[in-house]
Amino acid sequence: MGGGEQAGCGGDVDVIVVARSGELCSFLESWRFSLQPFHLIIILQGGGSGGEVGGGDQEKKGIEVPAGFDAEVYTAADVARFLGRKLTAAASSSLLRSLSGNACKSFGYLVSKKKWIFCLDDDCVPAVDPSTGFIVDALRQHVSNLEAPATPFFFNTLYDPYRDGADFVRGYPFSLREGVPTAISHGLWLNTPDYDANTLLAKAEESNRRYVDAVITVPQNVMYSMSSINLAFDKALIGAAMFTPPIEGLISANTTNGTDFRGNSIDDIWAGFCSKSICDHFGYGVKSGLPYVWHNSSSKRDLEALHKDNKGLLLLDRIVPFFQSLRLPRNAMTVEDCYLDIAKQVRARLSSVDPVFLELAASMEAWIEAWKTFSPR
Amino acid sequence: MGGGEQAGCGGDVDVIVVARSGELCSFLESWRFSLQPFHLIIILQGGGSGGEVGGGDQEKKGIEVPAGFDAEVYTAADVARFLGRKLTAAASSSLLRSLSGNACKSFGYLVSKKKWIFCLDDDCVPAVDPSTGFIVDALRQHVSNLEAPATPFFFNTLYDPYRDGADFVRGYPFSLREGVPTAISHGLWLNTPDYDANTLLAKAEESNRRYVDAVITVPQNVMYSMSSINLAFDKALIGAAMFTPPIEGLISANTTNGTDFRGNSIDDIWAGFCSKSICDHFGYGVKSGLPYVWHNSSSKRDLEALHKDNKGLLLLDRIVPFFQSLRLPRNAMTVEDCYLDIAKQVRARLSSVDPVFLELAASMEAWIEAWKTFSPR
Repeated sequence: MGGGEQAGCGGDVDVIVVARSGELCSFLESWRFSLQPFHLIIILQGGGSGGEVGGGDQEKKGIEVPAGFDAEVYTAADVARFLGRKLTAAASSSLLRSLSGNACKSFGYLVSKKKWIFCLDDDCVPAVDPSTGFIVDALRQHVSNLEAPATPFFFNTLYDPYRDGADFVRGYPFSLREGVPTAISHGLWLNTPDYDANTLLAKAEESNRRYVDAVITVPQNVMYSMSSINLAFDKALIGAAMFTPPIEGLISANTTNGTDFRGNSIDDIWAGFCSKSICDHFGYGVKSGLPYVWHNSSSKRDLEALHKDNKGLLLLDRIVPFFQSLRLPRNAMTVEDCYLDIAKQVRARLSSVDPVFLELAASMEAWIEAWKTFSPR
Repeated sequence: MGGGEQAGCGGDVDVIVVARSGELCSFLESWRFSLQPFHLIIILQGGGSGGEVGGGDQEKKGIEVPAGFDAEVYTAADVARFLGRKLTAAASSSLLRSLSGNACKSFGYLVSKKKWIFCLDDDCVPAVDPSTGFIVDALRQHVSNLEAPATPFFFNTLYDPYRDGADFVRGYPFSLREGVPTAISHGLWLNTPDYDANTLLAKAEESNRRYVDAVITVPQNVMYSMSSINLAFDKALIGAAMFTPPIEGLISANTTNGTDFRGNSIDDIWAGFCSKSICDHFGYGVKSGLPYVWHNSSSKRDLEALHKDNKGLLLLDRIVPFFQSLRLPRNAMTVEDCYLDIAKQVRARLSSVDPVFLELAASMEAWIEAWKTFSPR
């Protein structure tokens, strides 16, 4: 298998892209100034049916990686072959179903060998910081967010206290000023807002133009909506909890490939709840805010048609109280332990709400089996 | 007594100013565009020794209220006379000591009859919104913050979901989208940052120039540093908890008038913890962020001299865990009940840390006695 060697420069970061739009080439060109020094893991969503796992090839399965980029490219068949090498047929097949649709992004988490992972959707281009006129280097900002501590135990009213020109405000306890390690950096998006189907239906023409120049630590025991549009995290600290199961695929047999319409999807939202709970358990920080990207989603076009598959969204009103009341056992010492405990509690407390949670718990367990196999500590 | 009639227009808001800088006139002129329609309650910090409580007078006790403003003006002697009318000599004298220094702002809360109270320090001038170039009408933004619901139970990554051009992001539970009543609107400041003495000592030249275009609900059960520089709140929902006791005055006999140096003061920080705890108990919202004011504090000048009186700041590392673990009884049905319960718990759990907390608990109880007398429901 080629591509196993991550020969690129850019030391500590892998960039994971799910190629969906068919415009990977122009996407990569728009990000060349930022991403070229880094290794790319590109996964073709539902595409291809054979071929080797690519490495330095410039052309592979109909997609072209522009010259100068260091990329490994995976088709669905590559993913199947990769998993099949070490997992049992049953486990591999179960996991493959879980890695369908947008969830195939998780496969990149599994194969990355770097400290930090940066996921970027291929319908995003760089944003401009209106206060300076400069193009935003999203990856650089994510690394800066991940390198600096987070402050989950007390809200700093001037936002990130470690940023140049800022500090802890009067009244901030001195004992909390060292902060804690940052596990997740959740970036935002201008232009197409990341609304759900219902909201988009009501506001089909809305565009987000407000550039809020801040990075905020989401406080401990507070839940938020994590989107994987523009997301970075520390693989060792939280990677095992970032699995994005295709909940809609599990719900509806006729959408087993997941839905392409992000507005109905809660796969990354689910990953956000799991990872936030585990960060809270270990005292790690989760930041949200900068960097922005410019989001050109084409989801709106099929809005009416897709509006019907929003069962995942409707389940949120049961899922959120579950996570808000979740307590992880004190003896859960690893992310994997915590994640398996969440799966157990999902089965015990949510399966009466909807049978999909039984399948979800099983897919979470299969994920951890794969994680332990491919990303051992 | 003059000034009892709040004859001004501006319906629902009283503006409370503690006149400290001797430049009240230029302060008011800079805010005329925003404040003129509203009733002002002006308190002379430690100033004056007699005279009537003022109303429409243009000159009173050496200060001048420019023409066109509707103001009532109180000297320390006025405050003493006002309290003495209805309180016992002992209660009045105890409360007077508690209302010394910057804490005399609380007296304004007691006498206001309006729905909303806006406190603004007299070393602030209007800020400019860099994205539009327009001068910020702080009062208008506070009213807008207080009128719109808050969202303390789940963090919205695009910030205030009720703002034009924003909404709840994908993944935000539908059952939480109605929000809750907003009790507090905590505004920010550009230029002189609101740092404590230690931080200012290290960063004497730092100036905050970052205009973050956002209003954030501080989530439930999360503490923050509330400054009373630029603060608005709903009197009926939370006013009784906004008392700013001069903790430094209680600590040190030789600073019984409190300290003029805000960097050492935790009076408003204390009010922030009490009011946030009570908002969390009742499910009210607390917002922080816009509006900005431009803060021209002159505190830096005496930095070295004032650095010694920072015992209040050092007590924060004991105070914050107290509030983070505070539970209010389910049968505490009013803000006053809650506040008295906090006083009781302060006496029981903090007086062993420092005897100042015994005095603090007593002053909190005296405050509620006065509140029930002058601001009955």
